[in-house]
Order: sequence, then C-alpha cells, then structure tokens
Amino acid sequence: MEHFSKSQINEMDKIYRLNLVNSCTGYKSANLIGTVSDKGVYNVAIFSSITHLGSDPALLSFIVRPTTVPRDTFKNIIDNGIFTVNHVYFDDIKDAHHTSARYPSAISEFDMTSLEKEFIDDFKAPYVKSSKIKLGCKFINKYEIKENNTLLMVAEINDIYYDKNIIQDDGWLSLDKAKTVTINGLDGYALPSLLDRFKYAKRKDE
Amino acid sequence: MEHFSKSQINEMDKIYRLNLVNSCTGYKSANLIGTVSDKGVYNVAIFSSITHLGSDPALLSFIVRPTTVPRDTFKNIIDNGIFTVNHVYFDDIKDAHHTSARYPSAISEFDMTSLEKEFIDDFKAPYVKSSKIKLGCKFINKYEIKENNTLLMVAEINDIYYDKNIIQDDGWLSLDKAKTVTINGLDGYALPSLLDRFKYAKRKDE
Repeated sequence: MEHFSKSQINEMDKIYRLNLVNSCTGYKSANLIGTVSDKGVYNVAIFSSITHLGSDPALLSFIVRPTTVPRDTFKNIIDNGIFTVNHVYFDDIKDAHHTSARYPSAISEFDMTSLEKEFIDDFKAPYVKSSKIKLGCKFINKYEIKENNTLLMVAEINDIYYDKNIIQDDGWLSLDKAKTVTINGLDGYALPSLLDRFKYAKRKDE
Repeated sequence: MEHFSKSQINEMDKIYRLNLVNSCTGYKSANLIGTVSDKGVYNVAIFSSITHLGSDPALLSFIVRPTTVPRDTFKNIIDNGIFTVNHVYFDDIKDAHHTSARYPSAISEFDMTSLEKEFIDDFKAPYVKSSKIKLGCKFINKYEIKENNTLLMVAEINDIYYDKNIIQDDGWLSLDKAKTVTINGLDGYALPSLLDRFKYAKRKDE
C-alpha cells in the first residue's frame, strides 16, 4: 500500500492535506442546518460533522470553528438556541454545496440557491422543504476542543419529520428511500444503496 | 410529513427509539478500530461515530460509552495510547457487524470472524488486511459529555495507508473506488456511488 507519515502530512500543501485528511476517515453525514438571526435573516449551511450522540435522551453533536465560516450558523444558534437539521436530498447537492460560500450575514442562502424554506409547527428556525428527513433541535451545551480550537456542539432532537414510506416497522429510517446523500471529503457527494441489514450480533461460541 | 415530538420520542419502546434516533442524523462512517490489550489480545470493533475533527493537525474524534460495549477498545486505547482505523470494505460487512457481539476480553474478534489482522511498520495495534484505507492513530485526549455520560475521544492521525488507484491528484481519496461502506442506523450497511464533486463555493453576487 501507499503511505503518508505524520511528517509528510505536516509538510503537505494545505489544499492537498485538506482533501486527504477530510476523506481519510470515511463517509460523513450530509445535512443542511437552518437558523434564523436576531435580525430575522434565514440562514442555511451545509455541515458534514453531524453525528448521533445518544438515543435516550435523543442527542446529536457537530463541530464548529467559531473563528471561520459558517459563523452565522454558530451565532444564530447561540443567540436563540434553536436550529433545524435537514438531510441533503440527492437532487439538491449543487445548491447544498453552494451554501458554503461566504455570504455576509444580511444575505440569506435561501435567496441565493433554489433551496426553499419551510416553517412547521411554529418553530422559528427554517426547515428545507425538499428534505425528506428533518429535525427540530435545541442547543444544550458546547465543549471546547483545545487541540484545534473547535467547538463540539451538543443538541437535543425535539422533533423528527419524515415521509411516511421511509420508516420501517421497527423505527429504522431507510435513508436510501429518502435519497439522502453522504459526503466524501470536502466536496464529493455520493448516493448510497443499501446492501444489507443485520440482526443484533450474538457470540458464535455460546 | 409524519412527525414524532419530544414526548413521543421519550415514551417510545427502547428498540424503536434506538433504530429511529440512530438513523435520523443521516449516514455514518463505517470503521473497524483495531487495538491490542496489555495481555497481547488483538481486538477489532465496529464504530460508526468516527468523524473528521481537523486537518492541521490531522485529528479525528469518536464517541465511546465506557460503561458499555465495546469496553475492550476503550481500555486498550487508554492503556497503550494507540489504535488503527480501518474502512469497512463492502465484502466484509457481515464480519464487521459481528465484531459488535459481546466477547470477553480474552477472545480476539479476529479469531471469531474472517477479518485478518495485519501489522505494518512496527505499529503495535493490528490493521485489518482487507481494508483499502487505514490509519495509524495516537490517542490525545478525552472529553466527558455530561449530557449522556459518553466520552469524546480525540486522536492524532499519524499514518495513512491507501491503495494507489484510490487517490486523486489533489489528495482526495475516492471512497467509492475503495468500496468503503457507510452505516444507516445501528445495523444497515450501504455502498455509495459518487454523484459529483464541486469546486470551492464562491458568492454568486460578486
């Protein structure tokens, strides 16, 4: 196999390292976070770090760099404590990726893309209309990761919306029926097909 | 759309909630963590929470519950500070899932599955031979997530191994060439196909 050592990684061209290290941990989730500013501007931004943290209580986490883009998302969540998480639908990948452009706070990414905002059940933050699975979330806590000055954001999942055909009898959401995509690195979007589902694993030697 | 509220999520049957909440945040990475115990037992266990944390320095993070399975992985990492991360190859999903069975510490999952261990460059922790992208990692720090008594483990990526045909000229690893899978919920394994890669997003209004 080919090999990069720590010293080679450290000495790489910045863009080459970004591409390599962002793709070396495997596929990432593809979600649009919807927020509203205290001035009423609706923000939507792509995130690839949203991760399941626990089921009881239902929690998720994601990583932000407060000193870089997307600052608006971070500020809006801190200011009013709520946000939405919207799976990226396969037909929206170009617009979803465009939300990573550095627009000023006064401009809504909903106005600069074909993504449509949607308001459900009096929740103040905007959902993404085309998304087949969407979550209403409440910010709970943040942890400072001192190794690289990032923040781990922890939030409660308070509402889960989904299209009826997506759910199985045991509560499992079939992401390939939702045509949810996954992210490869910084800029690659891929559509998965289910290979198999397995039962709870039991020892072979008992 | 269909809807579950916070109170409905709280009152669900445990297995239903596990399936629902584990699948509602989107696709997860599929990696096998390889470790060695202080008694020389080689452990390998499936993880779906490994996430890119930063590129410079090259860092990843993942979540563990010290009080539940897989305790061996956690203990081995704390005891000797190193581990490997191995992408799950599409042909190995059944064996990869089986590593979640609760074997005692004295039994190596390499002996209970068809997964083969491989040792590279004097690294003490075992790699998974069939994996097309694998990382040698050094544990750095852990953060206690008090909301649900989990730990965020932070580690440095010191070695990246990959098959030659997988890397692009700009450092991006093509995960669909590696036939790396992704996880849907607790037990669904899916194989992605690349739809597109996009350029760095620039404002449309400038």
